[in-house]
Amino acid sequence: MARWQPGTAARLQAAALELFATRGYERTTATEIAQSVGLTERTFFRHFTDKREVLFHGQHLLAEALLEGARGAPSEASPLDAVARALRSAAAFFPAERRPHSRIRKTVIDENPALQERELRKLADLGTTLTDTLRARGVDDLAATVAAQTGVAVFGVAFTRWVRDGEERAFEEIAAEVYGELLAQAGSAAPVR
Amino acid sequence: MARWQPGTAARLQAAALELFATRGYERTTATEIAQSVGLTERTFFRHFTDKREVLFHGQHLLAEALLEGARGAPSEASPLDAVARALRSAAAFFPAERRPHSRIRKTVIDENPALQERELRKLADLGTTLTDTLRARGVDDLAATVAAQTGVAVFGVAFTRWVRDGEERAFEEIAAEVYGELLAQAGSAAPVR
Repeated sequence: MARWQPGTAARLQAAALELFATRGYERTTATEIAQSVGLTERTFFRHFTDKREVLFHGQHLLAEALLEGARGAPSEASPLDAVARALRSAAAFFPAERRPHSRIRKTVIDENPALQERELRKLADLGTTLTDTLRARGVDDLAATVAAQTGVAVFGVAFTRWVRDGEERAFEEIAAEVYGELLAQAGSAAPVR
Repeated sequence: MARWQPGTAARLQAAALELFATRGYERTTATEIAQSVGLTERTFFRHFTDKREVLFHGQHLLAEALLEGARGAPSEASPLDAVARALRSAAAFFPAERRPHSRIRKTVIDENPALQERELRKLADLGTTLTDTLRARGVDDLAATVAAQTGVAVFGVAFTRWVRDGEERAFEEIAAEVYGELLAQAGSAAPVR
């Protein structure tokens, strides 16, 4: 089960976020991040290739949390049902104690176009990995792609809501609401002409 | 109706794509692009801020083509039906004669991570604009966001298929197939637990 683990990397991440948020991303150096928690620049670079990576480190755990649900779906589950399971299992990556961290991280990313583009890239990569996982279950290309990309869209909407100021519901509850909204809309949609 | 217009910018775009594809994006300069069609660097920079922009120029016409359908939907149309109309009207931006251009453009973008991230950003911007358009129709925030992001996911899948080698069907037909697949999957999905 993918879960957020504390440790040196996590301490550096927390310190980096603190500095990015107070001093600004551009004006913070890797050395300053390391020194602020009594570590050396060398230790920093043992964990991260550059300061941007601090914001994206550990994202493979999100992919794993997401894929776990899809992989564990019964063989008779439809591609979209496998995706719904993926959304539920992804919630393991977003426990309540992570939300303050995620909120600061989002503020930093929102202020820097290059970081926003990187974040979008990571989301797109999730879509590709999820598509591959569905294909490996024997789902055809069109069905796998549509289910995975729809799932990533739902995930993106749910995540954006989860980090919103004032939001207190769990990720899983929000994701279920967003997914339910999609099913309700699609269920009453006019058929394709 | 948003349509692809020839002219100086289009000539520069075609020349740039040709050079990007044969010589490589990194190794092509704005001056070389301009000179290859008998124009000056100064003319180039009157149309584009930099060589990257050549690949994204005119994308506001895509946004307009897309939004036209959503804006023109009858007031009683559901948000997802307005999005389906947007997908149909977006087809105006992808006439058959544009496909060779789009294929080369995609090859260039696929080889450069920074260009890929920029392309994802433009797609995300379409989602935001479409959400705003639905909100302006009086649709609530959750419904507007879900419909728009789902629409952008369908659009992305359809576009990827439209530019694939060997694909000869019109964009509108592909988009209808992808959207139909989404409705079929959602229609038979297990309800949210």
